Amino acid sequence: MHTHLIIRSPRRGWQSLLLACAGLLAAPLAVADGEFPAKVPVPADNPMTPAKIELGKQLYFDPRISLSGTVSCNSCHMVQSNGSDNLPLSFGVFGRVDVPRNTPTVYNAAFNTVQFWDGRASSLEEQAKGPILNPVEMGMPNAEAVVDVLRKIPGYHAQFAQVFGGKEPITFDHAAEAIASFERTLVTPDSPYDRFVKGDKKALDVTAQEGLKLFNSVGCGTCHAGPMFDNPGLPMGEGFYQKFPAQPQNAACAKYVQKYHLHGDLGRYDVTHKDADKERFRVPGLRNVALTAPYFNYGTVPNLQEAVRVMAACELGKNLTETQTKQIEAFLNSLTGKFPQVTLPHLPQTPDSTLLMKVADMAKEMQKK
Amino acid sequence: MHTHLIIRSPRRGWQSLLLACAGLLAAPLAVADGEFPAKVPVPADNPMTPAKIELGKQLYFDPRISLSGTVSCNSCHMVQSNGSDNLPLSFGVFGRVDVPRNTPTVYNAAFNTVQFWDGRASSLEEQAKGPILNPVEMGMPNAEAVVDVLRKIPGYHAQFAQVFGGKEPITFDHAAEAIASFERTLVTPDSPYDRFVKGDKKALDVTAQEGLKLFNSVGCGTCHAGPMFDNPGLPMGEGFYQKFPAQPQNAACAKYVQKYHLHGDLGRYDVTHKDADKERFRVPGLRNVALTAPYFNYGTVPNLQEAVRVMAACELGKNLTETQTKQIEAFLNSLTGKFPQVTLPHLPQTPDSTLLMKVADMAKEMQKK
Repeated sequence: MHTHLIIRSPRRGWQSLLLACAGLLAAPLAVADGEFPAKVPVPADNPMTPAKIELGKQLYFDPRISLSGTVSCNSCHMVQSNGSDNLPLSFGVFGRVDVPRNTPTVYNAAFNTVQFWDGRASSLEEQAKGPILNPVEMGMPNAEAVVDVLRKIPGYHAQFAQVFGGKEPITFDHAAEAIASFERTLVTPDSPYDRFVKGDKKALDVTAQEGLKLFNSVGCGTCHAGPMFDNPGLPMGEGFYQKFPAQPQNAACAKYVQKYHLHGDLGRYDVTHKDADKERFRVPGLRNVALTAPYFNYGTVPNLQEAVRVMAACELGKNLTETQTKQIEAFLNSLTGKFPQVTLPHLPQTPDSTLLMKVADMAKEMQKK
Repeated sequence: MHTHLIIRSPRRGWQSLLLACAGLLAAPLAVADGEFPAKVPVPADNPMTPAKIELGKQLYFDPRISLSGTVSCNSCHMVQSNGSDNLPLSFGVFGRVDVPRNTPTVYNAAFNTVQFWDGRASSLEEQAKGPILNPVEMGMPNAEAVVDVLRKIPGYHAQFAQVFGGKEPITFDHAAEAIASFERTLVTPDSPYDRFVKGDKKALDVTAQEGLKLFNSVGCGTCHAGPMFDNPGLPMGEGFYQKFPAQPQNAACAKYVQKYHLHGDLGRYDVTHKDADKERFRVPGLRNVALTAPYFNYGTVPNLQEAVRVMAACELGKNLTETQTKQIEAFLNSLTGKFPQVTLPHLPQTPDSTLLMKVADMAKEMQKK
């Protein structure tokens, strides 16, 4: 179903083999052993082209596809930062404070088997539509409203036509396809860990190497497996959605649950309405995890060391020593990759700004309520 | 007082001579006749260096120097767009709707003699500080709070030290100097008009050429003079701050005043508290004016044709024919230059996000009020 975009020159084939086989594995891999994939998976029905990527980049940075005309994908998933915004919870359209979960990073999201904390989207294409239409996030009322905005921007007509052809090239699906294509370029290979796996034993210092061993021996690697450390099991397979907190009876965990308000998010249950899915979440990948504080679904845990402690206590029922915590932190620091250089797009302009002029009045009305 | 950054290879010297002499002119030039300057003015006490420009770009795109952690310079002055946000009035921090005036474009702001609609800043360096500390815009309480945030970001320590040296390189002044240096790269030369002035008579079609003649003959060029069409007279000289609306007794103007709420902004008076300065404003430059709708201090006029009509009626007391309006619009369209390619910066990360975690609670409190 997937072709692959080569990220750099192809190397040993086993990484892509591993990716390709991931869907066949019934249980997660037991050890974290994958080098960063040489290729990003590309759906056969949405091939990447330079023009599509460029269009997707424009849409990604274009706040006009939000109800206020001020929120773009990049407002929360900041490409110039870590692909997120370092906030516990992002602010939504018109400064709304009821965004329910922490914003995941867009970097390497191309490798996620499913998207969102609760896995409710199975592709980047599907994910891209979510926040645009979410009343709390970008707030557009429906797909037609998005298309209506895009069709009012003459420059987009030519670009959508060039990329997608057809009688009516500007559609919400096409916009999402272009955005997803741009997002597939946001990958961060070449971390110290990757250099280590490739044989450069100096790429990790002793502390990080001890951390890597511990990561696997204490059990982190059971779920955080595969090259993205996100559990490459089948989405429907056992263990794909993990309970958090899984060990609330552990005394340390109980303390963290209280301190960081870890209870109360129904997680995957919101999608399936099965009791067994309550408080279950997609296992987030760990690439660049050192840059994506604060942590977890509510973004309540402020730093990586504390996140390691919380995971050990609440997922594994284990209390780490300070030395162990620092060793695992050192290993996680080694997962920070090289970020791509992204040239800012230049958005096509609207000759008439009536499009956005209603917004200020609307905002003032909302403020009055 | 100024050195010059060469934008492209130096050409005929009269443009820079014109710029250099601008400060000596007692009255505005009578005709719009300047090609885009080959050099951007650079203050002697803030020379541009690649490292300073890069640091300034990071700060420009960094929302952490706002009270909410979500508003950067680029939120309203969007580099990926026209240097503004195409909104009548921008939304401020926490979605505030009381930003008082339309956001001017950052493109070519380096050439403005003074900054802001009311000219209350005399340099880009001074301007850059304004929105950061404005309670309605980025909302930081004071310079110390900005410095406090920047000092909590380890990557900035090394960069400020490299750029500015000294015992305590991270200061609000230095941040503003870096931002201003980046902004001096945001210039748009090579418009069709510039090619026309250089001798390519085909660069403007007949309509635009008629528009250029009209622009001067009806009187637009009296104030919109010089290479940036922003009146290069002395800031304190006669006519530098122009009354708007100047001809409210004109019947057409009176209609526009009512329709677009053109009255009520005290303009320059807010700075000087002199009665004569009531409703006086800096003459905005016209480079890329076709891209910066909606127009005027309240952003109430939706498109360029209407803006031309309003100006003719309210500044010159003249009613243009539809043909004349379209000719002048065609000329103004020819002032759209070539935008620079800007590589997105990569912001240094905070290892601990406590910095931003207080924000969500604060926002929720504010929302309750």
